[in-house]
Parts: sequence; C-alpha cells; structure tokens
Amino acid sequence: MEKFEVYILGCGSALPTTRHFSTSQVVNVRDKLYMIDCGEGAQLQFRKMHLKFSRLNHIFISHLHGDHCFGLLGLISTLNLLGRTAELHIHSPRGLEQTIASMLDFFCRQMTYKVLFHEFDTSKAELIFEDRSLTVTTIPLCHRIPCSGFLFAEKPLPNHIVRSMTDFYGIPVFELNRIKNGADYVTADGTVVPNARLTTPATPPRSYAYCSDTAYKPDIVEQLKGVDLLFHEATFAQSDLPRAKETFHSTAHQAAQIAKDAEARHLLIGHFSARYDDEKVLLKEAAELFPHTTLAHEMLCVQV
Amino acid sequence: MEKFEVYILGCGSALPTTRHFSTSQVVNVRDKLYMIDCGEGAQLQFRKMHLKFSRLNHIFISHLHGDHCFGLLGLISTLNLLGRTAELHIHSPRGLEQTIASMLDFFCRQMTYKVLFHEFDTSKAELIFEDRSLTVTTIPLCHRIPCSGFLFAEKPLPNHIVRSMTDFYGIPVFELNRIKNGADYVTADGTVVPNARLTTPATPPRSYAYCSDTAYKPDIVEQLKGVDLLFHEATFAQSDLPRAKETFHSTAHQAAQIAKDAEARHLLIGHFSARYDDEKVLLKEAAELFPHTTLAHEMLCVQV
Repeated sequence: MEKFEVYILGCGSALPTTRHFSTSQVVNVRDKLYMIDCGEGAQLQFRKMHLKFSRLNHIFISHLHGDHCFGLLGLISTLNLLGRTAELHIHSPRGLEQTIASMLDFFCRQMTYKVLFHEFDTSKAELIFEDRSLTVTTIPLCHRIPCSGFLFAEKPLPNHIVRSMTDFYGIPVFELNRIKNGADYVTADGTVVPNARLTTPATPPRSYAYCSDTAYKPDIVEQLKGVDLLFHEATFAQSDLPRAKETFHSTAHQAAQIAKDAEARHLLIGHFSARYDDEKVLLKEAAELFPHTTLAHEMLCVQV
Repeated sequence: MEKFEVYILGCGSALPTTRHFSTSQVVNVRDKLYMIDCGEGAQLQFRKMHLKFSRLNHIFISHLHGDHCFGLLGLISTLNLLGRTAELHIHSPRGLEQTIASMLDFFCRQMTYKVLFHEFDTSKAELIFEDRSLTVTTIPLCHRIPCSGFLFAEKPLPNHIVRSMTDFYGIPVFELNRIKNGADYVTADGTVVPNARLTTPATPPRSYAYCSDTAYKPDIVEQLKGVDLLFHEATFAQSDLPRAKETFHSTAHQAAQIAKDAEARHLLIGHFSARYDDEKVLLKEAAELFPHTTLAHEMLCVQV
C-alpha cells in the first residue's frame, strides 16, 4: 500500500512545557511531505525524525497564533542556508505574509528559493491543493481568530486489471486504461464483457483530517464522514469544560464525540494544555466514548 | 561564594542539528538571570533547565542573525501568556525593534508587560548594564554584520572586617563601612591602625566573557585580560581555516590562542559547525594550546 502517514512533531498547546513542543505535524503521502502548522522548534523535530527537507514543498497553517507558526522563520532560514532552489508554498489564513515580511526581508536577504504565500478564506471549505493523487480541503473551525482544519484525501484509484481475463479476451493494451477506469469491453463479435469481470476494485482512497484549534463544532461532522484518521484537539478534560468554552478549545470527550459522529476509523488527540501532567486522563475520557483513540506524543508516526 | 554560573541552552551554529539547539545561554549572578542570545527553542531549553522566568529581566543579543534571536518571539509571547508584569529589557545592535515590531504587534496584542529595546553601538566597548554587584560591557567583535560580545564582571567587593581586631581597638560600628572600603582607623590618641590589620581582602571579583560570533580578533585580548571564564566560539577546526575566514568565524585553535593570550582561567568553546559529528576534534585542538578547555553542550552548567 502506498505510504500515507502522519508524524507528530509537537502536540503541546500555547505554553510549551518540558514534555511538549508546540504544534506541528508532517503528513507523508507517497514520500511527498506536507507540514501542518509550524510551532517553534518544528525544524528541530523534523530533523530528529529524519525527514527530508527536499521532499517538503507545502506548509499549511491553521491559524495565526504564535504556537502554530513561530517556527516558520527558522525553517525558511535553514532551507536558505541549505541552498534550496524549489519553491516553498505556505497556505494560511489572511495576514501571514504581511506580518512576517519585515523579518523575512531582514533575516533572509539573499534567498536561494522563492517562498509563495497562499491565503485562504476560513469561513468555508475550500480546495486549496491538488495533485495527481491527493486533495487538501480546508475545514472551517471555530476559534478565537479565523482558523481552518485540513482534510487530506487520496483520490480514488483506478481498478486493478485482472490480467488472466484481459488475456483470455485478447484485449489490446490501448484499451486497458479505459477498463481500469470502469469501462466495459466489447469484443469483435459485439459481446459486452462487463467491467466487473475484468477488474477488481482498487484499494479505497484514504483520508486524514486535522482539526485544531477549535471549540466543539458538530457541523464539521458531515465533512469528516468516514475519515480514516481524525486528529482532533483535546486541550482540556471535560471537568475543565468552562475553560474550554471560554478559550474556544475542545475537551477530550468532545473530540471523541466528533470522531464517533463522523464514524471515523481512528482518533488521534493532541494540543494538550500544560495543566495536565499525565494526559492519560484525556485518553481515558475519549476512549470511553470512542475506543480507537490514540494519545499524540512527539516523534509518534501513525499510519492513516 | 555568591552564585555566578553559566547555563548552555544551545551551542550549535546556524544550521540546527539533531544534537544542538541554536545559540542561547543564561548567566546566573546571585539568582538574577541574564540571557545571552535567544535562538529558536531557547524558551524550551530554559524550562528544561528548571530556570525561573520571573528571575529574567535582561536579554543581550550579540548580533541579528536568526540563529541568535529567532527564539525571542516565542519567549516574549510565553511570558505574556504567563501574565508577566515586570518590564523585559532587550539589548541588541541596531535594528531589532524595527524588524520584530510587526510580528510583535500582530501576535502579542494585549501585552501584560512592557518590552523595552535598548540598542548599542557595536564599534566600541560600552557599559550597557549596571547594578549593585554587576556590570555588563560590550566587546566589539568582527563578524559579517555588526556584532558584540559581552563581559559580565562582578563589582569589587568590600574587604572583610576582622572582628577580633575591631573589638580590640574598640572601633565603633559607624566606622566599619569606611574600613571595609579600605580606610585606616585613627584611635583617640592619634595612632593610625593600618587597614591591612583590620581587614582581610575580599574574594576577588569574577568575570565571564562571551565572544560569539567572531573572526579571530586578537585585539579583544586586552579587554579580556585575566577573565575567569571565557566562552569563545570555535565554529571550525584549524583544518577548515579558509572556511572560518570566509564566514568570519574562529577555529578552536584561535579560540585557545585568545584564552591563552588573555590569561583566562578557563575556556569554554561552542557554536559548533554542523559538519563535525564529533566535536572532540575541536576540544583536542584547543586543549593542546590551552589545557583548561571545556566543550559546551546543551544543559551544561559551568561555575565562573
């Protein structure tokens, strides 16, 4: 199966602790790397996980709070020192380019590569990246400032050809692509061979959803329906629900509720408040409602 | 003896590696903390070393390269989240405040405390901080951009009173301060008791010099004469001397030469290039010329 993995570079919240870096993840889809959020120290963690900068071309920033983007300057600067030439694309809510410009101009004067900023509208789901095998769509979230999650979805793969059947019917090579994509085959004497006899279904496309930072927002469930892996922030325990509401964050229970309602296959929780010395309380709370829950931690790699 | 220690938060150079954070140190003088440089991740290392943010009021930035100051935003932001009220003073070469302003304005909107920027002239040695027991003076260095080191010097302490002698001469309490500061005592009958009979010399004042980043600059020796602890960058080995010259950095041999000529008591080397997997080659090179040399590493604490 093609690679589709999520690496946790940092899963703390605004206040860094001795145990957690601030937020950053890397999604590996067939050895192309996509960074989600870039808190302070993200480049250090990236190196520690032995990921390759050359495979990273897109960074997605959920919202413009420092713990989600203070690592950008260091990363951009390092790539420059390494003599990168490929363009780097940074996708974010409005305002990042303007805010970061004066420091970029000052600290990265002779750039060996271009940084291209792309701003998206956080009020609606929007397709912001697409290549042959993947789409990335924003997920409108509800935080103190404009904020979006990201849905990484593999494109449906063509069916697999059953070689013995195509040989049996003597199907010419130039017909195979059509058949892979679902066409029936008509023989010289006009007999229709149904596609189902010539192919087996492709592996179903997989998807990963990243939802952080956000208050409990049940209306995202529709967009997440059937997602394979859901990362949902769980900053607080249910006992701190008032604090969660006040700060537009979620509890572990709420994260599990979203996973359950979305019929996700697997839930990963993170963005832990510094107040919990042991996050097992968050895991326990989520797992009671949604058993297949995993606690994020630095250096964790999860298969989608 | 009063506390005077140096903590290494990071001792790598421009490119962070899996082994080193970029440059940052904390000097602890009688439980007041002074940060020197603030590379990415400095606040994380600060926490890991169990230092207290409340004791930190002054940060000294040697020069405006990213690996010496990209940690400032995260640190300032964290202190704000913690509700700090005391002013924070940042001393640096010209340009920092203007460069960082737009990000500070954007990311730290409702500040609970004031950040005050103080700019110094890197072309000459300048007293930039003074309190009852300490002075901090800049050391003009030679790098690709304006850059200063810092000399932390304890102020001379008054002599110790020899209680048995002051009792013997029946010296009144109000005279003791003058005597501590070196005065002789004149008895009622006009006899002069020399100060040396009434006091023992105070512990000699100690000093710490931080020299990074810099090309080999022998004329700093005069200012460093007799320093107790000298941190000198040793980015390269002598075999990479051409690279050191080209980039305005020093070799381990050159760092040792400065320590030797300055008659320093102890040399600490750091700011290691990412090219050395094992920095023992640098230690060996320096120690051949200046035996009392220590290799910096993260989490190291050195007594001055």
